[in-house]
Amino acid sequence: MRRLHVDLRSGLALVGTLLALLSIAFVVPIVTALLYGGEDLWVFVVSMVGTAGFGLLLRRLDPNPTPGAREAFFVVAFTWLFAAIFGALPYVLAGTGAIAHPVNALFESMSGFTTTGATVMETISVEEHSHAIMLWRQLTQWLGGMGIIVLAVAILSQLAVGGAQLMEAETPGPGVSKLTPHIAETARVLWLAYIGFTLVYIALLYGLHLTGYAPEMDAYNAIAHGFTTLPTGGFSPEADSMAAFSPAVQWLVIPFMFIAGVNFVLWWHMLAGDRTALLDDTEFRFYLGAVTAMTLVLAAVLAVTASDVGPETGLESSLRHAAFQVVSLTNSTGYASVDFDGWSGPAKALLLFVMFLGGSTGSTGGGIKMLRWLVILKSLRREVFTSIHPEAVRPVRMNGQVLDEDAIRGIYAFTLLYVAIFLVGILLLAVDTARIGYDIGTIDLVSASIATLGNIGPGFGVVGPMAGYGDFPESSKLLMILYMWIGRLELFPVLVLLTRAYWRS
Amino acid sequence: MRRLHVDLRSGLALVGTLLALLSIAFVVPIVTALLYGGEDLWVFVVSMVGTAGFGLLLRRLDPNPTPGAREAFFVVAFTWLFAAIFGALPYVLAGTGAIAHPVNALFESMSGFTTTGATVMETISVEEHSHAIMLWRQLTQWLGGMGIIVLAVAILSQLAVGGAQLMEAETPGPGVSKLTPHIAETARVLWLAYIGFTLVYIALLYGLHLTGYAPEMDAYNAIAHGFTTLPTGGFSPEADSMAAFSPAVQWLVIPFMFIAGVNFVLWWHMLAGDRTALLDDTEFRFYLGAVTAMTLVLAAVLAVTASDVGPETGLESSLRHAAFQVVSLTNSTGYASVDFDGWSGPAKALLLFVMFLGGSTGSTGGGIKMLRWLVILKSLRREVFTSIHPEAVRPVRMNGQVLDEDAIRGIYAFTLLYVAIFLVGILLLAVDTARIGYDIGTIDLVSASIATLGNIGPGFGVVGPMAGYGDFPESSKLLMILYMWIGRLELFPVLVLLTRAYWRS
Ligand SMILES: [K+]
Ligand SMILES: [K+]
Repeated sequence: MRRLHVDLRSGLALVGTLLALLSIAFVVPIVTALLYGGEDLWVFVVSMVGTAGFGLLLRRLDPNPTPGAREAFFVVAFTWLFAAIFGALPYVLAGTGAIAHPVNALFESMSGFTTTGATVMETISVEEHSHAIMLWRQLTQWLGGMGIIVLAVAILSQLAVGGAQLMEAETPGPGVSKLTPHIAETARVLWLAYIGFTLVYIALLYGLHLTGYAPEMDAYNAIAHGFTTLPTGGFSPEADSMAAFSPAVQWLVIPFMFIAGVNFVLWWHMLAGDRTALLDDTEFRFYLGAVTAMTLVLAAVLAVTASDVGPETGLESSLRHAAFQVVSLTNSTGYASVDFDGWSGPAKALLLFVMFLGGSTGSTGGGIKMLRWLVILKSLRREVFTSIHPEAVRPVRMNGQVLDEDAIRGIYAFTLLYVAIFLVGILLLAVDTARIGYDIGTIDLVSASIATLGNIGPGFGVVGPMAGYGDFPESSKLLMILYMWIGRLELFPVLVLLTRAYWRS
Repeated sequence: MRRLHVDLRSGLALVGTLLALLSIAFVVPIVTALLYGGEDLWVFVVSMVGTAGFGLLLRRLDPNPTPGAREAFFVVAFTWLFAAIFGALPYVLAGTGAIAHPVNALFESMSGFTTTGATVMETISVEEHSHAIMLWRQLTQWLGGMGIIVLAVAILSQLAVGGAQLMEAETPGPGVSKLTPHIAETARVLWLAYIGFTLVYIALLYGLHLTGYAPEMDAYNAIAHGFTTLPTGGFSPEADSMAAFSPAVQWLVIPFMFIAGVNFVLWWHMLAGDRTALLDDTEFRFYLGAVTAMTLVLAAVLAVTASDVGPETGLESSLRHAAFQVVSLTNSTGYASVDFDGWSGPAKALLLFVMFLGGSTGSTGGGIKMLRWLVILKSLRREVFTSIHPEAVRPVRMNGQVLDEDAIRGIYAFTLLYVAIFLVGILLLAVDTARIGYDIGTIDLVSASIATLGNIGPGFGVVGPMAGYGDFPESSKLLMILYMWIGRLELFPVLVLLTRAYWRS
């Protein structure tokens, strides 16, 4: 082991500790199973014991793990991978439906922990699957969201890859060389906001139910959707996603989806008393502006082609569905208020466009993200200027600060890598589906690549919001598991593990 | 005028000189009209006189124009714009079919001079339009190709935008501060190769006709297609493009399309006796490798789904259509050997993928181009490495030379700008088509954006190889005219003209 420059023992021990902590989460489906007649109770007990046991075993590799920045890549990548693997246990053990197959189970679990929300289930219903299984599926996204906030704010900023060092100035607490104390401190304050929003949201959803505005939104559904909105997850125990609920519910979901796409550090500043923290932030204004503008454009498009919207028509309906889908697909939530796959080509093209935007940095949203686009646009403006004045030195500023040129280069590299991986995804999925003669549309393949890499979930056609990824060959599913994993961890933590340099030099 | 920092007089005078030279090209349709009974003869005489007159008038602004690097942006952008405008005159004056409408005429003419090959014609036939008109349409692409070679090799490399300075080392002749002498020298040697290939190609096409392998490839068709292959243009006087011709013709077209996508500086080196110039060049090997690999992949996909290929089946047919479409859409030619819009979703997804590649730098091909992708891939590898070793200094090399970091940044910026403009194109086309209730598919919109920006021509659905852009609203057509123009000139020459800094500071 001495030839390795990575402290494997320390890293694996930390992964083990995190897995052992994760195993506590099985309490939720266990309680659920007890409430609903004990169905699948043993499944979760076994999963809990297995996860805790494996985690504690790993932990014994190093009783006092102190991983450094180098190990962070490894810890991040393997925590998500092991969480997905052990989170898939209940699906396999319960043995019900398509997700009993190991590849499908891993797909569904990775889709959960990465808050993607892509599904391979054939029947999404508490009739076919137990309440406990369906709630576990929701919970994986909420847990994934907790991890992402910490990853985005505390860890990636330390690794300074893909321009993430821009986040550094904004993180609460002093920067420290070892990751663990910094993570603990940051996690505590940001999780307060995350948990607070979740509780308020569940209460409001259930409030709509109690006041008669949401007959279908019972306590189970309120909790289930409470688990998948703040993490921009998008899983629903209803096959029709948010189309199964009343307009009142849909109007309530929109602002909470929006909240989930905001940098949680800003929420922390707001809660700490800085009332202008949101509007002072350039990225927030860009996010708000983009979502508002695209909503108005899509609403206009839907109003012109009223038949697209669904059973209802009229301005309210156009506006609601436009705002819902724009927010949902911009910040990678993936909920649907209507089967938007039935919309006109131009309306769907607008949705495809927003899929490339992504949430804010420091949010639970996936994708390229607002800050990166903003830096790219500012720096491209500079590039045009310097092509006229090659001698000019003109820094790029954000929130009044001059941006480091290395960070700009990191953002350029991240975005190009993202686009390249997206394009290669189209290529690989096309070849693999053709291999088994799977009849799939071109736009379906395009959307499947961006919807998995961007942790969005639904796309168009066979991967539309009321459909799923079940019919893809297993090799495609494995590729998309990789894509969800790579995309969620912002590419570099997984990619560096594939290099010799990481392990040997 | 003294407040301007751009020497407008000098620039416009040079544009005028080039327009006056362009007017000589009308001799070709005039001779054609005389050969075919004089139809539309007056149209071309008037166009020739008008173009020459306007050009000579502009030229009087400055009898001895000496534009510098600053004016080069202006000269390049306006030469193409004026060429498109005066090249549209014959369509309007002839008054036949859809292209008699000014917007359509400008679209068809810009599509010609930018070697895009997108068409708004309703009936592509020498029955509806005169032989002279149809040959002028072909000739605009050949003339555009001549301009592009000079633009790509001699001008853009001097402007050092979008990483074009990488070309500088390879250009024949010494670098000089004033553009004109350098252009003249470079143009001479590269045009020799361009004209030589065209003549050999026409001779071989007609040879196939004389030997009975290509009944439809008469002298008119051989010349017409000779005008649109080396410039990666893709216009054809046949509505069915290359599907109207025999397999023998298609097999001959493939290598000449491939040649058109190679850096013409390499052909110059080869003709000058350096027999290994091609294979010594990294970009050429990358181009050859990409096209070969994608051909094999697509042929396999087509062989699995044999019904896709068309009336014929079998290995030869799969391989021919695969090679044809891959070369044609990779380097932006846009010819079709079969209506590939009828192919399966996966097969079309492969074609969409190659549309993002582009030809080689210094070729007549459009798009992002091989060299940029190669530099991006090499530099992303470096980025992954330095994310592990932040202290490491590791230059990116190409053909054994260390690349300038500014050039790499320029390539990053170019490619991101390209992707951003492509995405915004989807958005704008979607809104504009929805406005008039045009029933168009999502993938049609996606492909229309890349096919015009990338100067490819055909895409999928309503813009498929056997269809066209005629049904778009005029506003969309104007947008796509802009996209063809911007894309062809490698973004910056047009974009800088839109900034205050170019004109005032
Ligand atoms: K999602
Ligand atoms: K073309």
